[in-house]
Amino acid sequence: MSIIQPRTLKGFRDYLPATMAAREEVVATARRVYRGFGFAPIDTPALEYSEILLGKGGDESDRQMYRFKDHGGRDVALRFDLTVPLARFAAQHAARLGIPFKRYHVGPVWRGENTQRGRYREFVQFDFDTIGTESLLADVETLVVVHDLFAELGLSEFVIHFNNRDLLNGLLEGLGLSEQADSILRSLDKLPKIGIDGVRSELATAAGASPDQAEAILALAGLQGSNDEVLTALPAIVGDTSTARAGMAALESVLEGVRASGVAEERIRVDVSIARGLAYYTGTVFETFLTDVPGIGSVCSGGRYDDLASLYTKQRLPGIGGSLGVDRLVAAMEELGMVDDSGAAADIFVALFVADRAGDYLSLAAELRSAGLSVELYPDARKLGAQMKYADRRGHQLAVIIGEDEWERRTAQVKTLATGRSVEVPLAELTQRCSELLEASS
Amino acid sequence: MSIIQPRTLKGFRDYLPATMAAREEVVATARRVYRGFGFAPIDTPALEYSEILLGKGGDESDRQMYRFKDHGGRDVALRFDLTVPLARFAAQHAARLGIPFKRYHVGPVWRGENTQRGRYREFVQFDFDTIGTESLLADVETLVVVHDLFAELGLSEFVIHFNNRDLLNGLLEGLGLSEQADSILRSLDKLPKIGIDGVRSELATAAGASPDQAEAILALAGLQGSNDEVLTALPAIVGDTSTARAGMAALESVLEGVRASGVAEERIRVDVSIARGLAYYTGTVFETFLTDVPGIGSVCSGGRYDDLASLYTKQRLPGIGGSLGVDRLVAAMEELGMVDDSGAAADIFVALFVADRAGDYLSLAAELRSAGLSVELYPDARKLGAQMKYADRRGHQLAVIIGEDEWERRTAQVKTLATGRSVEVPLAELTQRCSELLEASS
Repeated sequence: MSIIQPRTLKGFRDYLPATMAAREEVVATARRVYRGFGFAPIDTPALEYSEILLGKGGDESDRQMYRFKDHGGRDVALRFDLTVPLARFAAQHAARLGIPFKRYHVGPVWRGENTQRGRYREFVQFDFDTIGTESLLADVETLVVVHDLFAELGLSEFVIHFNNRDLLNGLLEGLGLSEQADSILRSLDKLPKIGIDGVRSELATAAGASPDQAEAILALAGLQGSNDEVLTALPAIVGDTSTARAGMAALESVLEGVRASGVAEERIRVDVSIARGLAYYTGTVFETFLTDVPGIGSVCSGGRYDDLASLYTKQRLPGIGGSLGVDRLVAAMEELGMVDDSGAAADIFVALFVADRAGDYLSLAAELRSAGLSVELYPDARKLGAQMKYADRRGHQLAVIIGEDEWERRTAQVKTLATGRSVEVPLAELTQRCSELLEASS
Repeated sequence: MSIIQPRTLKGFRDYLPATMAAREEVVATARRVYRGFGFAPIDTPALEYSEILLGKGGDESDRQMYRFKDHGGRDVALRFDLTVPLARFAAQHAARLGIPFKRYHVGPVWRGENTQRGRYREFVQFDFDTIGTESLLADVETLVVVHDLFAELGLSEFVIHFNNRDLLNGLLEGLGLSEQADSILRSLDKLPKIGIDGVRSELATAAGASPDQAEAILALAGLQGSNDEVLTALPAIVGDTSTARAGMAALESVLEGVRASGVAEERIRVDVSIARGLAYYTGTVFETFLTDVPGIGSVCSGGRYDDLASLYTKQRLPGIGGSLGVDRLVAAMEELGMVDDSGAAADIFVALFVADRAGDYLSLAAELRSAGLSVELYPDARKLGAQMKYADRRGHQLAVIIGEDEWERRTAQVKTLATGRSVEVPLAELTQRCSELLEASS
């Protein structure tokens, strides 16, 4: 029989225990934080009718979509984010759920992206969103959730950059370039990648901006300084349209609310260069950067999308939320040395020493577990050296070794693997003593 | 602009908060139990090369596969279970991970099944497996994990039915029907659905069994009684081939180990009618039934698949494991009234009463949260009646109401929503008093 080569698709990857244990911790922490603000869990299918997903993220996201015909000839596609399915979900279930509706949702999304940029075609996002209110309090809360999430994850060096799309929209209105807004947004979103000259030339070629128009746009995107400096400088740069004024007022009000929520000034930054590539965003937009892992890009992004659900319902369902890039964050934490490589090993390793005592070892393992300890029993009566090598590699803390002699004397050798020290313990006291040794070594 | 109808695909469904909160609890419990035995987490892609998946589950599973060409023209498919990807994973990474390798894995799988049987085309499985040993201790442990899992979930009425495929294989050897084993297995797997007459006629038509052969097979599948009665009756029924003898010895040894692990006799049943539909199983097979929800079928199934990984590698990588049908189990728990409908509401609801005090409410909510309480702040200064109606519906425990008058006096009204009783509390004591009230009502 010929062997099938065991391999994953280009742009896809397996996750081994150390990385997955870290992902589980990130997800558990995010869940606790989201729940702390009253968000509740939902799930939606990986596959949707293509018409639900097409045209929502923009041309690029349409091109990258995994789209095919199912058994019934339906035109279907794998979701490329969790926001568009949420808008569909909200339109479908709002009457039953009531608004405001606050939900979180964790799951994989798929984008047939160019993998040369170090991106994967399948990655896990963990989103939270508030549907059914235009209140800026929801914008404030979104940023506070992100703040609390990163603080809880133990990441000390992060900054949330936020902006309001109405600033640029207002400026473009004044410049008579509103029709080209999507194309201009896409160019600005590439600023970190292609630089200011690259954006300048794209603004001319793709959006037909004159040199003066391009400079006005770049003056906005290039504005930097402290939060208060930026807010002070903005009026002269964005001009005096009502849209621009609304954008500035929103920016100021959100900053005030975030400060009132106790977020330190160095964790939040008004950054008018933040554009966000996806087409559906309206007001507030944000990205989150880890200053000690600069190369990795934003690890938590989002914004307001007040018109997205109107594609599916006549009910007005504005929304705002954020999306944690779980896999990207775990990669950053690996880079920061925050991930240990034991991959959730059990506390205690029990060697299988006397094959025909299997029932005794099983019974012993069950007893230890019933006291809340985690126990791995080796399944084969191999040489003790091989079993101990396995336990060392796996990262257990204690090894329990019982030979025929010990069984007869009703004792066990308990070895602390980090130090190599062994003690002999009566079986009647084994649970108690293992608990103490684990406590001492933690 | 025309409205796109918000709908999910046939056979797919959205999960609302109450159901999802229950799923999260099941997953958290299963994770804790799996980890307690030393299983570690992994993840694999939803999409695989079709050649990895085809032919592993049998004809039916091939037909039901979501298979298409990706952007690069690759022949790809969505996984239909988590076992075949594990076999591929093990073949690919065994050298790095070492054996035995014990992993758990939770995620959705896709099968384009006939939805008329109340089945969904996407559902979540939570698997655990041991790779790299033929030791029957791993078979015992698999059944003990299932036992502990259901006990931890608080399900008091469950029975694990197990069998060994070598009994039937041995009988078929004796009858000269080994070549027809797959077809006979598939027929027997339908026993609960089509009854004994249905199976008898399928054995004749699909497998070409003579009436005597069919009766011998049905005598085995129909054997019932206590565990010891079945073990005593078996030799006369399965005949004296070496395969049959090995199957009986394995069955007996596994039962002994499960008993030694402290599993009560009424939770484990030798059931020689258990066949399992998938083609890759070899020795031990099992299914788990909830006796108080009989209609729902097996909620946790699995078995030994010693040859599966040999499709991808020359290294010998036998395996055994189980798969918890998470969504099916949650449906059963809903039927049993074990799922409440609050869907993870926050403990405390804070009404937004004075719009221009937004910063004060935000600061108050942050303070409550920093003490570990979960707090939902209403985002709009709507009429108090509407806000309280929302809180009632959502299922919060306490509502905190602060009007201008209370802000000036530095107090809050705290209402216990279940009883309707309110108390006035100084803001300086709010966290403390809310914690006490929550404690009292839980």
